[in-house]
Amino acid sequence: MTEFFNVLPPDEARALLLAHVRPLAEREIVPTAEALGRVTAAPAIAPHPLPAFRRSAMDGYAVRAADTHGAGESLPAFLRVVGEVGMGRAAGVTLRLGEAALVHTGGMIPDTADAVVQVEHTQRVGGGEAAAFPHEIEVLRAVAVGQHVIQVGEDVAAGAEVLPAGHHLRPQDLGGLLALGLTTVAVARRPRVAILATGDEVVPPEAAPGPGQIRDINSYTIAGQVLAAGGVPQLRGIIPDDLDALRAAAAAALAESDMVVMTAGSSVSARDVTVQVIAGLGEPGVLLHGVATRPGKPTIIGAAAGKPLLGLPGNPVSAMIQFDMFGGPALYRLQGLAGAPPRPALWARLAQNVPSESGREDYVPARLEETAEGLRAVPVFGKSNLIYTLVGADGLVVVPLNRAGLMAGDLVEVRLF
Amino acid sequence: MTEFFNVLPPDEARALLLAHVRPLAEREIVPTAEALGRVTAAPAIAPHPLPAFRRSAMDGYAVRAADTHGAGESLPAFLRVVGEVGMGRAAGVTLRLGEAALVHTGGMIPDTADAVVQVEHTQRVGGGEAAAFPHEIEVLRAVAVGQHVIQVGEDVAAGAEVLPAGHHLRPQDLGGLLALGLTTVAVARRPRVAILATGDEVVPPEAAPGPGQIRDINSYTIAGQVLAAGGVPQLRGIIPDDLDALRAAAAAALAESDMVVMTAGSSVSARDVTVQVIAGLGEPGVLLHGVATRPGKPTIIGAAAGKPLLGLPGNPVSAMIQFDMFGGPALYRLQGLAGAPPRPALWARLAQNVPSESGREDYVPARLEETAEGLRAVPVFGKSNLIYTLVGADGLVVVPLNRAGLMAGDLVEVRLF
Repeated sequence: MTEFFNVLPPDEARALLLAHVRPLAEREIVPTAEALGRVTAAPAIAPHPLPAFRRSAMDGYAVRAADTHGAGESLPAFLRVVGEVGMGRAAGVTLRLGEAALVHTGGMIPDTADAVVQVEHTQRVGGGEAAAFPHEIEVLRAVAVGQHVIQVGEDVAAGAEVLPAGHHLRPQDLGGLLALGLTTVAVARRPRVAILATGDEVVPPEAAPGPGQIRDINSYTIAGQVLAAGGVPQLRGIIPDDLDALRAAAAAALAESDMVVMTAGSSVSARDVTVQVIAGLGEPGVLLHGVATRPGKPTIIGAAAGKPLLGLPGNPVSAMIQFDMFGGPALYRLQGLAGAPPRPALWARLAQNVPSESGREDYVPARLEETAEGLRAVPVFGKSNLIYTLVGADGLVVVPLNRAGLMAGDLVEVRLF
Repeated sequence: MTEFFNVLPPDEARALLLAHVRPLAEREIVPTAEALGRVTAAPAIAPHPLPAFRRSAMDGYAVRAADTHGAGESLPAFLRVVGEVGMGRAAGVTLRLGEAALVHTGGMIPDTADAVVQVEHTQRVGGGEAAAFPHEIEVLRAVAVGQHVIQVGEDVAAGAEVLPAGHHLRPQDLGGLLALGLTTVAVARRPRVAILATGDEVVPPEAAPGPGQIRDINSYTIAGQVLAAGGVPQLRGIIPDDLDALRAAAAAALAESDMVVMTAGSSVSARDVTVQVIAGLGEPGVLLHGVATRPGKPTIIGAAAGKPLLGLPGNPVSAMIQFDMFGGPALYRLQGLAGAPPRPALWARLAQNVPSESGREDYVPARLEETAEGLRAVPVFGKSNLIYTLVGADGLVVVPLNRAGLMAGDLVEVRLF
C-alpha cells in the first residue's frame, strides 16, 4: 500500500525533492554562439591570456612613463612622436628615450612603452600635418608606469578556469568564451519532461467539448513552464481515469524522459490513483503527499531512480503554481544547477486585506496598478479552477507560513508570474 | 553636419528613444501552443463562456439548497441520492424535491440543483453498496444557493476581451486561450535586429587573432540579449573602420531589419564615424549623443522612420549594459509593449564603498555571496574593456543619479544580469 507522509512546508518539500534528483550525466557539445540559457557540463579553461597583447585604454600617446616624470601644465615634457600604431596591427615602432607613438583606444602598446598619455593632456607643438611623423608634443601631465595600459592577462590569465561546470550561460558568458576562441561548449542535455493529463472530462483544445467536458490546458501551461526552465516538454496526451491505463502511460513516459509530471483531476479518487501510480514507478516512489500551501496542498512529490515525479492538482492555477514551486527547481537541478534562479519581483502596497492561516504559505494572484503613491497590488480572488485569475494577474503575493494574513497597506513583494 | 545634443539622464534618454519607435504593424498567426513569449497583435475575445456548464468545485452531492435549510449536526436533512454524475458527461439526472446526485470535483451540476454539499458534511444512511441508487444521506450542514458551484461564465463571459493587444504571452495566457478553443493567436512579428561590429582590429571568434587583433564578441553578446528580448538577431559581420563602407553596410542592414545596432571602436574617430552614419540613415537620425551613465556615456541613440538605431561603445561591458538600457526596451516597443519587463533582482549589503559622481548613474558589476548575515554584494571592479568583469558578476548595482556613491553596508538592489 501507498505510504502517506505529513504535509510539509514548501521549502522543506522542495529540499526533499531536490535531494532525490540526480543531475543528468549526458553532455552535448554545442556552438557557443547558440548556447544561451544552457548549463555548462564542464569547466572552461582559458587557452591564452586575455588580452593577449598590451592594449591602450585611451586615445593618446604610448610613452615611457619616466619621460613624463614631473610634467605639468606649467612645465610640460617634450616628446617626439615617431609614428602611429595602426588598429589591428603589431605596434611596429620601438620607442627610444624621449619618444612617443600615437595610439588609439584598443591599439597595441609598443614594447618599450609602459604607459599612455591621454590626448587631452597633450599639445601638438608647431602644428603641421597631423599624420606627418616625426613631430613634437607637449605632455601636460605625468603618467605612472602602467597608466591607461591594459596588461596581458588583465582580464583572464592563461590556464584560468573561466567558467565552472553547472553555470547557466548568459550573453556575457558566451562573449567571454568566444573572446578566447572557445567556439564550442560542453553543456548538459536539455531535460525531457513528460506531461500527462488525466481526466475523463478532459478533451484536447482543438475539440469541441460536449456536455460536462472541458479542454486540456494544463499540458500547455506546464509545457510553457518547462520551456522557460530550459527543458523539452513531451506532451503525452490525455490518459483515462483508470489505474492500469495511467500506470502503463506513466511507465512508458518515465522510460523516455527525465521527469514526469501528471495533472490529475481534483477529486479524491483521482488523487489516490496518482499516488498509486507514482508509488509504483520505482524507488523511492512517493516522497510526500501534501504541501502546506494554498493553492496546491494535494501536490504529490516523488522520485524514481533520480528522476523527479510530480502529481499536480488538476485545477490549472494550482498546477502552475505548484510546478513553479517544485518542477522548475527540479528541472534546473537536472541540468546541474542548485535550483531555480529568482523571479523578477516588484514591491507594492497591498490594496486590501488578504486572509490566510498561520502554518500555510499562500500564493495570491495580484494585479499591479500604478498610482500617484506608487505601485498598488490588487488581489485577484477566484477559485483555483479559474485560469483567468492567473491571466488577469501580473504576479503572486506570498503570504508567509507564519502569518495569518496580510493587511491593506502592507508593502508586499509581487513575484511576476 | 551632425547635430549634437546634451548628455541626458538614462530615463529621459530612453523616453526620447521610445517616442521615436514605431511598433511593427505586421502580424503573424501562430499556434497558441507555440506562442510563449510572443506579443498579441489583436485583442482575444471569448467565443463562449468559461466554464460552459455549471461545475462542482468539490466532491459531494448536488442538491437543491432549500432542501438543506436549517440542517445541522443535531438535525440533519435527509436526502435521496438518485444517481451519480459521470465525469465528462451530461448530468443526466433531474432532481426533484428532497433529491440529490453524487458529483465529483469538476462534474456537471444537474439542471434543477443549485448547490453542492461537500461529502465531508454528509453521512450515508444505512450503508449498502456505494454505487447503488437510490440511497439516503444525512446532510449535516446547510448550503446556500450557489455554494461550491462554479457558475457558467464565472471565469470568463462570452464575448469578453480576454487579452488585449500588446500583451506578452505567458504560460497561463496560452492556457486561457486554449481553454476557449482559441488554438491560434495573432502576434507581432519578431523584430529583426541587425548587428554590425566595426573595427580594423576585430576578427571573427573562430579566427586566430594576429598581433594587435581581438575577437568579435559584441555581435554575440548582443545577439543573446536580442534573443532574450524576443528579437531575431541578424549578424552582419565586421565592417572596416571606413565611413563609406559603414554607411553602405548600415543602409543595407536598415533596409532588411527593424532595428540597427552598431558597436564601434571606443576611439573618438570611430565614434564620430558612427554619429555620421546614424545621422545619414533617415529622419530624425541622431537623437542623442551621450547618456549620463557609467559605463556607456558615449552611446549614440537615433531613429529612422520609426526604427531604433543604436551606436554602442565598442568595449563589451558598456555595449551590453547600454543595450540592456536602450536596446531591450526598444525591442519590446517594436513588439507593441510599453517597454522591457523588470529584471529579477535581489537585495544585498554592499561589501565595500562604491564611489560615483552626482549627476551620473553608475552600473557596477557585483558578485553575490551568501553570509550568515544574509546576501553580500561584492563589487567586481575592472575596466569596461574586460568582459570577464561581467562574467564574474551576478548582477549590477545601480548608483542613482543623485548619489555621489554608495557606502559599505548599504542595502542595495542587485539586478541579476
